[in-house]
Amino acid sequence: MTIRLAGLPEADQDRIGRTRASVAALHAELPRNELVVWTAGNVSEKVPELTSGHQLFVIKPSGVSYDELSAENMVVCTLDGQKIDDGTADSLTPSSDTAAHAYVYRHMDHVGGVVHTHSTFATAWAARAEPIPCVLTMMADEFGGDVPVGPFALIGDDSIGQGIVETLRESRSKAVLMERHGPFTIGADAKAAVKAAVMCEEVARTVHYARAYGDPVRIDQAQIDSLYARYQNVYGQKGNTA
Amino acid sequence: MTIRLAGLPEADQDRIGRTRASVAALHAELPRNELVVWTAGNVSEKVPELTSGHQLFVIKPSGVSYDELSAENMVVCTLDGQKIDDGTADSLTPSSDTAAHAYVYRHMDHVGGVVHTHSTFATAWAARAEPIPCVLTMMADEFGGDVPVGPFALIGDDSIGQGIVETLRESRSKAVLMERHGPFTIGADAKAAVKAAVMCEEVARTVHYARAYGDPVRIDQAQIDSLYARYQNVYGQKGNTA
Amino acid sequence: MTIRLAGLPEADQDRIGRTRASVAALHAELPRNELVVWTAGNVSEKVPELTSGHQLFVIKPSGVSYDELSAENMVVCTLDGQKIDDGTADSLTPSSDTAAHAYVYRHMDHVGGVVHTHSTFATAWAARAEPIPCVLTMMADEFGGDVPVGPFALIGDDSIGQGIVETLRESRSKAVLMERHGPFTIGADAKAAVKAAVMCEEVARTVHYARAYGDPVRIDQAQIDSLYARYQNVYGQKGNTA
Amino acid sequence: MTIRLAGLPEADQDRIGRTRASVAALHAELPRNELVVWTAGNVSEKVPELTSGHQLFVIKPSGVSYDELSAENMVVCTLDGQKIDDGTADSLTPSSDTAAHAYVYRHMDHVGGVVHTHSTFATAWAARAEPIPCVLTMMADEFGGDVPVGPFALIGDDSIGQGIVETLRESRSKAVLMERHGPFTIGADAKAAVKAAVMCEEVARTVHYARAYGDPVRIDQAQIDSLYARYQNVYGQKGNTA
Repeated sequence: MTIRLAGLPEADQDRIGRTRASVAALHAELPRNELVVWTAGNVSEKVPELTSGHQLFVIKPSGVSYDELSAENMVVCTLDGQKIDDGTADSLTPSSDTAAHAYVYRHMDHVGGVVHTHSTFATAWAARAEPIPCVLTMMADEFGGDVPVGPFALIGDDSIGQGIVETLRESRSKAVLMERHGPFTIGADAKAAVKAAVMCEEVARTVHYARAYGDPVRIDQAQIDSLYARYQNVYGQKGNTA
Repeated sequence: MTIRLAGLPEADQDRIGRTRASVAALHAELPRNELVVWTAGNVSEKVPELTSGHQLFVIKPSGVSYDELSAENMVVCTLDGQKIDDGTADSLTPSSDTAAHAYVYRHMDHVGGVVHTHSTFATAWAARAEPIPCVLTMMADEFGGDVPVGPFALIGDDSIGQGIVETLRESRSKAVLMERHGPFTIGADAKAAVKAAVMCEEVARTVHYARAYGDPVRIDQAQIDSLYARYQNVYGQKGNTA
Repeated sequence: MTIRLAGLPEADQDRIGRTRASVAALHAELPRNELVVWTAGNVSEKVPELTSGHQLFVIKPSGVSYDELSAENMVVCTLDGQKIDDGTADSLTPSSDTAAHAYVYRHMDHVGGVVHTHSTFATAWAARAEPIPCVLTMMADEFGGDVPVGPFALIGDDSIGQGIVETLRESRSKAVLMERHGPFTIGADAKAAVKAAVMCEEVARTVHYARAYGDPVRIDQAQIDSLYARYQNVYGQKGNTA
Repeated sequence: MTIRLAGLPEADQDRIGRTRASVAALHAELPRNELVVWTAGNVSEKVPELTSGHQLFVIKPSGVSYDELSAENMVVCTLDGQKIDDGTADSLTPSSDTAAHAYVYRHMDHVGGVVHTHSTFATAWAARAEPIPCVLTMMADEFGGDVPVGPFALIGDDSIGQGIVETLRESRSKAVLMERHGPFTIGADAKAAVKAAVMCEEVARTVHYARAYGDPVRIDQAQIDSLYARYQNVYGQKGNTA
């Protein structure tokens, strides 16, 4: 069933419906990749190419378990983080992290997807406010360097969004470890942001174990640059790195 | 099939049957969230609003595997921990932790659900008798501060129940780490207590890894208070924080 | 399909068939509880009460994956570890650990089931030749004290079996950590030995993490004795502690 | 559906089709054994006994998720790492690690299968450029000694392949930890190489935990030799050690 927003062209309604379905489905990757417990993580995606000129994104409803998510109970918001009333009876409250997602979309035009989790090892680095050093080829490939730390910020205003944007603007990394909170990742679409969340936890875990018995050597910057350029352009099918 | 207790109004029998079903189903969350091995964990729930005035709770039978649990083989007890004879042929012995659950219900009126596990990381902190410091926003959200340690106590009398109640009364935490034993969690209902058990293990694990390479900084008390108040009131759908 | 051994009374053939089915099914618990990778673990069970007076046990075939196990491809052996020829076309070679299982059955009459794994944390303690100290109530319950270490021994003769028996005879523990090798567990039947293997790994893991930040205090011997006595007699349904 | 390569005898086309199916199916073992996240690992297998004299191998397409793999979307390459055009419409780009696999097949005639992962614990040892010492009987069985480290090498030419071959030629090990990159394993066929990848991660994990509280003692070389010889010849059914 496609939920229709009032007053939008049919093509836009269809596009929103497809984004709802895609975001709902991608949430299944969070528990599958052991990035979340209970309801503690969320995915959003900007709706691309609306003919009406609206700028909208789709996000998880707050406090709903991953098993119960469907295209229908996703929440549609403006880039100000205001929920769109789509006239359905059981319209839900969006994720409590909606303001942070919205801030990222407003300030980073190339971002089409955002993911937030409290995945164990990434959050452990975040608890120490320590960036993950780029000591693995797979970090150079995916993140193009260290995974940086963003400031400690409380929920409730734009502090978290600002911290994410300021940190990621100075880095090639698609992931930021918000201090004593957890990782946020970005991508060209939601799938790419989910991939970054998966890779962020994996490198956080691997480097955690690696340093238990010695400090791994950082890869030379020129080699990181070479690996990153290759992976972004050559890996995958026709440049699709997701 | 609804099991009928003798001499109770039908409305009460129905209410007990629904609690049996709910408690049986919630046990599946324990292995699913990797909180238990074999049969080593249990969930109970107080039966709400019995018109007959009885105070009853439903708990797991002792030593039965999670795969074999059903509404029918749950055990119904009074708040003294005495099993109710419901006249079924294969009535089972309640969990060996029944006395501790009963003590909590007798002494904490707002508690409607209790969970006990030996989940790995929470039990590791319990083995050292060390509280988990509140160094993550998700701890402030869910527990409102540190997760405290309760005394070492042997099974067989009210020592464990007393230790749980005395520790939790002095804390906002829904979880207590009983020394060299394991965590007990409470909630308004069994689902909330299960959520607390899941979150307790997750923060125990994350902070365990975080401190391997430095001591994470505790969140300021005023900020903890702010996060806790917000989460208890704003998160989820219409105040449902489960 | 029941495989019939030549020259045995039908009652004994049926009993062997039931043990084959039970041992095949119990192997599924090893990967399910993450005690094994690939084919590296095995379960055996003595066939009880054969009217013919034969002493037999059923064990896993060597190098066969857990997905492919069935009652039919289990291997039946004498207590000398010699495979019984049951006349089926594709009779398989028994586990390379068969001699160790057989030695245990020959020398410990009360043992009806044996399990061997290389489960990660138990094997980590075994690699250091270090017993697991009894610092958790669940260790006192299940093992009645420390989990002891057995000698380093090579496969190929009775060295491993002797090491298991000599170590377990001096302990209440159902588990022994064979040095630089891995755990063996025993029980009244195969299910009890599988439970002991699951519990052994869980306490090995929990105590591993517990001691990372301090030495947990051993439980007093009198309290261990009390917990052990209670658990062996009171826990479960009618004394069934499996 | 069997994909037919142009100009090959039908028997060879069938043989390629069977290898496609086998390689596609074996990829499922990588996530099942938790050796990979997202698309970060690959399996290849040399096509045996082609009557046309061609030397070919089958490998994963680049950047395609494990759920989407099938016999049809596997990629067939020459031992120079050049993709064979099989005339299908959606022919895919082979794994970005194809050159390394091809180099191994060109320089090690006895190798019929190659696996590459970034499995967590093996990669942690690789990050420190530290070989895994042979302190467990299961390491002696499977690897015949330490698991060695290969040089740091960038993707894009034959450096990785050379590093793998030079390291493995001086060892009995089926696994090499490429520095700051991850493990590559070899075998007589792809299934044996997958088994080696599974065992490599398991011993990397177990020895990681073992050394946390002391240095496990290496097994004597003569005993390693004895265990290795026995396992390669006696274990499994009729010498099949997979």
